[in-house]
Amino acid sequence: MSLNCDFKEQMNQKVHLVEEILQEYLPRQKGRQSIIMEAMCYSLMAGGKRLRPLLMSETFRLFPGKSRALHPFMAAIEMIHTYSLVHDDLPAMDNDEYRRGRKTTHVVYGEDMGILAGDALLNYAFETAFRAFVLDPEDSLTIGRALSVLGEKAGIYGMIGGQVIDVKETGHAVSKEVLDTIYKLKTAALIEAAMMIGAILGGASEEEVKKTEQIACNVGIAFQIQDDILDVTSTSEVLGKPVHSDEKNEKTTYVTLMGVEEAGRKVQELSDEAVSLLHQLPGEHEFLEQLLLALIHRDR
Amino acid sequence: MSLNCDFKEQMNQKVHLVEEILQEYLPRQKGRQSIIMEAMCYSLMAGGKRLRPLLMSETFRLFPGKSRALHPFMAAIEMIHTYSLVHDDLPAMDNDEYRRGRKTTHVVYGEDMGILAGDALLNYAFETAFRAFVLDPEDSLTIGRALSVLGEKAGIYGMIGGQVIDVKETGHAVSKEVLDTIYKLKTAALIEAAMMIGAILGGASEEEVKKTEQIACNVGIAFQIQDDILDVTSTSEVLGKPVHSDEKNEKTTYVTLMGVEEAGRKVQELSDEAVSLLHQLPGEHEFLEQLLLALIHRDR
Repeated sequence: MSLNCDFKEQMNQKVHLVEEILQEYLPRQKGRQSIIMEAMCYSLMAGGKRLRPLLMSETFRLFPGKSRALHPFMAAIEMIHTYSLVHDDLPAMDNDEYRRGRKTTHVVYGEDMGILAGDALLNYAFETAFRAFVLDPEDSLTIGRALSVLGEKAGIYGMIGGQVIDVKETGHAVSKEVLDTIYKLKTAALIEAAMMIGAILGGASEEEVKKTEQIACNVGIAFQIQDDILDVTSTSEVLGKPVHSDEKNEKTTYVTLMGVEEAGRKVQELSDEAVSLLHQLPGEHEFLEQLLLALIHRDR
Repeated sequence: MSLNCDFKEQMNQKVHLVEEILQEYLPRQKGRQSIIMEAMCYSLMAGGKRLRPLLMSETFRLFPGKSRALHPFMAAIEMIHTYSLVHDDLPAMDNDEYRRGRKTTHVVYGEDMGILAGDALLNYAFETAFRAFVLDPEDSLTIGRALSVLGEKAGIYGMIGGQVIDVKETGHAVSKEVLDTIYKLKTAALIEAAMMIGAILGGASEEEVKKTEQIACNVGIAFQIQDDILDVTSTSEVLGKPVHSDEKNEKTTYVTLMGVEEAGRKVQELSDEAVSLLHQLPGEHEFLEQLLLALIHRDR
């Protein structure tokens, strides 16, 4: 069996495990407000690659720690990612009616419930993470450190900040510096949170957490540049979404700024640096390395 | 000087202190996303009674604890209250253009920024509360308990849950049972969080926290019933907002269900029980008792 085949099989098993953890932490559908639990589950269980919880648990495995706080944090970060999609899709934001082939939350449940379901997912993400204190009370200070990272990377100095700049800069050309800030905050920040929390809960040193942050930052930005590249080099059949959309929307991307080839070189550079940093971390990192490379160099 | 005059003066001083704490914990207006910090501050510093942080610190003072975690939690609960108002005012929700005589956040900053400012305030509330881990690291487990209360009371089993039921039940008559659930979740839950967190950080026993929760629940529900009463007994000049609005909107209230007198008796009953429970708690509770009574029996 080829290595690639092995990787795919392992990947399927690991994604399956994430789905089970998510199921375990779904809100109970009780009370007169059960419609909101339904809307939360609708968006949470709409599929998706589950990258962030996967990156968290794989980073955790590099380190010797055995914290029981990992699972609630894995569920929490996927909830935060999902709420950001639910609010992004709202009529006053991107006004998207479909995501991954399914109607978006506000189309199914109404705009008011779309807003409330996003709020509820964000709040419930933190509620879920707080369950770590019950699972692992003697590790409260470490849980506190992990929470601080989650809060900061999801907020105005992280993901929300990136979304704000993206909204404000839409519809006109932007500089490379602004584009870098958007990619760093909107995409990379939550990937940084995922891997850093994995490292923190695994018992990494401060220096190791810093390195993990840099790896994740590279991966997030490379992921986003690869998105720009695929928009001009792929087909809508392969991608499962329209191509050449950036050109149509007159969007500044790495490709419009420096062309496909140069953008490709940038991806390679970020990827090489990430792998070299990963080799400086302890533990068995073969699977994580393959996962990062698969993410960065994906063809869809 | 009369007792009442004393109380008002103390109240002003204490509200001033809350404003100072809020100022201290406002987000720094930095970076390309500074518009979102501006929108957050616009809504946070729009005035308001600052009841929740005030109730938190006054409950805290009943107990012997000296936790340094109090201030970030006071700021956090006001941020959560504020985000709920920002999102409630959105066009897809109540569509309110004015609040406390000022234009609402989405009117000033646009609907997209209104959604993002609410998200940002909710996220930043938790970020702010997490600063407690740095201020008081040896008290991490207690901070964890306080966070769990904050998360639960603000979420789908608390404030958001109440908001969902309210949205779903608007426009038709509801039973007393449904009305009680809305008042308990939408209004009382966050007041419960405020007082319970004060008690937890102050070092209250589990039984004392339970009693505090019951006091806060009574206060929250009585506050809401008093709202129903003032809508038919007061004038728009005194209230600073239109009266008889419940009748116009065909809204079920305690007054439509049982009349003004019976509703008034219910307020008195809840108030008496709250005061009697308060007397079972330790510490000097004269000011808190006056505050609770002023809240419940207010004339505007």
